[in-house]
Amino acid sequence: MNAEIVAVGSEMLTPERVDTNSLYLTGELNNLGVEVVTKCVIGDHLERLRDAVRHAIARSEILIISGGLGPTEDDLTREAVANALDRKLIFHQEISDALEQRFARLNRKMAEVNKRQAFVIDGAAILPNERGTAPGQWVEESGAVLMLLPGPPHELKAMFERECLPRLARLVPRLVIRTVCLRVAGMGESDLDQLIAPVYKGYQNPATTILAASGDIQVYLRARCATEAEADALLREVAGPIELLLGDRVYSRNGETLEAVVGGLLRHHRATVSVAESLTGGMLGERFTSVAGSSQYFIGGFITYTNEMKIEMLGVAPELLDKVGAVSRGVAEAMAVGARHRTKSTYALSVTGVAGPATGAETAPVGTTFISVADDTGTEVLERQFLGDRTRIRNFASQVALDLLRRRIKSRT
Amino acid sequence: MNAEIVAVGSEMLTPERVDTNSLYLTGELNNLGVEVVTKCVIGDHLERLRDAVRHAIARSEILIISGGLGPTEDDLTREAVANALDRKLIFHQEISDALEQRFARLNRKMAEVNKRQAFVIDGAAILPNERGTAPGQWVEESGAVLMLLPGPPHELKAMFERECLPRLARLVPRLVIRTVCLRVAGMGESDLDQLIAPVYKGYQNPATTILAASGDIQVYLRARCATEAEADALLREVAGPIELLLGDRVYSRNGETLEAVVGGLLRHHRATVSVAESLTGGMLGERFTSVAGSSQYFIGGFITYTNEMKIEMLGVAPELLDKVGAVSRGVAEAMAVGARHRTKSTYALSVTGVAGPATGAETAPVGTTFISVADDTGTEVLERQFLGDRTRIRNFASQVALDLLRRRIKSRT
Repeated sequence: MNAEIVAVGSEMLTPERVDTNSLYLTGELNNLGVEVVTKCVIGDHLERLRDAVRHAIARSEILIISGGLGPTEDDLTREAVANALDRKLIFHQEISDALEQRFARLNRKMAEVNKRQAFVIDGAAILPNERGTAPGQWVEESGAVLMLLPGPPHELKAMFERECLPRLARLVPRLVIRTVCLRVAGMGESDLDQLIAPVYKGYQNPATTILAASGDIQVYLRARCATEAEADALLREVAGPIELLLGDRVYSRNGETLEAVVGGLLRHHRATVSVAESLTGGMLGERFTSVAGSSQYFIGGFITYTNEMKIEMLGVAPELLDKVGAVSRGVAEAMAVGARHRTKSTYALSVTGVAGPATGAETAPVGTTFISVADDTGTEVLERQFLGDRTRIRNFASQVALDLLRRRIKSRT
Repeated sequence: MNAEIVAVGSEMLTPERVDTNSLYLTGELNNLGVEVVTKCVIGDHLERLRDAVRHAIARSEILIISGGLGPTEDDLTREAVANALDRKLIFHQEISDALEQRFARLNRKMAEVNKRQAFVIDGAAILPNERGTAPGQWVEESGAVLMLLPGPPHELKAMFERECLPRLARLVPRLVIRTVCLRVAGMGESDLDQLIAPVYKGYQNPATTILAASGDIQVYLRARCATEAEADALLREVAGPIELLLGDRVYSRNGETLEAVVGGLLRHHRATVSVAESLTGGMLGERFTSVAGSSQYFIGGFITYTNEMKIEMLGVAPELLDKVGAVSRGVAEAMAVGARHRTKSTYALSVTGVAGPATGAETAPVGTTFISVADDTGTEVLERQFLGDRTRIRNFASQVALDLLRRRIKSRT
């Protein structure tokens, strides 16, 4: 079975925006053994949208449309699909009432325009939206299935998982797609590719995709087989040698983020962590606490953007700052030791560096970064020279810091 | 004039990859006054690609196709476009010779398959590729223009700039596109739309798009006119009344982020800020410090994830924590006061709340959040009940906190 995805919204036809819902949807469809053969972004335009729907259902069995279900006059998906299928839109009082109650619970009065969201294509099943106002719709038409889903990713994901996946599972003939996502820290993309290409180049199935972000590489392997056992065997055959080549640079095998992996290690060892951040300004803390349950091991931290804060909050010696400057090996160590001492955490991580674009009072060039970890056995410091803009330098620094802690914990156990 | 963009390649239909060429191309087309109305990604499939080409040139004047010009049998763009236009592919010996020489210069022998790249659609202009082997093609067909460009971004950009832009400039009637992006905090999307729709609904030009993220709404107005002056006048005509209606909820008029706007206000008033974060775990600090030059006003902060840290780092009274709990009006205030006192900053912001998915030791439901600002005149606290998952709750909280500070600074001046 083939699927197409249409994202609706003129804002996604600007030079700045990409549609990301289709990536999530593609992953889910692939897991069902369904291939995505075309995806489109279409502006808020009734005829273009109607034509796209007609063309898609003429050639593919599944069409998912995201966005354009809001309350405004720009939101044309309901109307365009009804036109394409030559069906009526029917007002559902119960949807309107539920919307009104939803607004009432938030102590707000429902705007009149929201009633547009109560129109449903004749014959469609209504997909409840637990996270927003726009209900989705499931429509079947001469062998094809259409799903109308809301644009905001958290609404779309919740609705797809709860309402669409079970319905799709009944429709789709079983072909199994299994994936492995190896995540790798501390290596450049071309070095990695040179190392592992001789392994994966020999295979069309599983398909291999390599994706690189700041200091983080993801190696996706995707096998399509008749059975799970076959797919798993194929994946082992290719992923095994790749993992051997990459060694401990592989930090997860299931796509888990580095902060989640480090969190899992801390929890496992009943250890705690604190942070002392200059360059990253809170990013390390934000990453630790983005993981549900992080309060079990993340105690807290210090964002010390000025020298005074480094002295007062972390106990860094003023003479040291005078002598070697804030961006230095010694200050990174003193920050980590200070954070650990003041929070009584098992581990403390620190980051100090020059984010740019200007170097400010620093003599070190933009991108110079010192990252330190402290525990009861002492400290360790890494010096790095990151390239790129402010965002990239900070992302890299937080990634290297988390990986430093991961290696430290593993080396002790 | 309208344009469509088609990216060719099954690898861009995986869950991991997006087509980025279309972002570059959209920017360049917009600069010429050309609107992109649809963009698609299509796999390596002859009929689908042929149909997409037919549909596109039936409704738009410009079609840019990227990718599928390589030497392998998967590379079907030449054939698909020739089929769609019902034209022949003609072998060009001079292209084949040039390719052979290119390989010879790299001390390699050209593979036989590379001859596929020497086929040109009858009547097309050949676009030389200085950075790769695949030449591009420029085809005109009954009022429409098609460009076939190579997929690798550095090849595509160089070819588009050198070969396509000058040709397009001769074809496209001179139209200027000017945009305004009003960013709005502290308002729901449908409330905002109800308020401003009566203004913008009267205009097709400028086109209005409303985009909502967690606690942040962007209103894009985009005018297409013959001259900059006309476009600017049109934008003023529509944006003026919208701004009046939205009042001080508009925090920027040029798309600037809330953290950049607040940073600008702090710098203007030579004021400083510090943060005390529980729920957001560093996100507020991260946002402040994402702005270049933030060290001029951002002093630092405290990530106090445990009660002990709130007591020790911020001086929150243990009795208060016992009595009202960490997620409370009183603790939010005490956190802000403590951060301000310890950093001697002009302002301090604090956030405490329940991020979920579990409520932990808290009795308050997931999403309950208290946000406080402190300055020399006292404190102010907001209580909010955010909906959604952990990420959404934290994003909302940081947005409301920054907006609270923005209003506080403005109310004093």
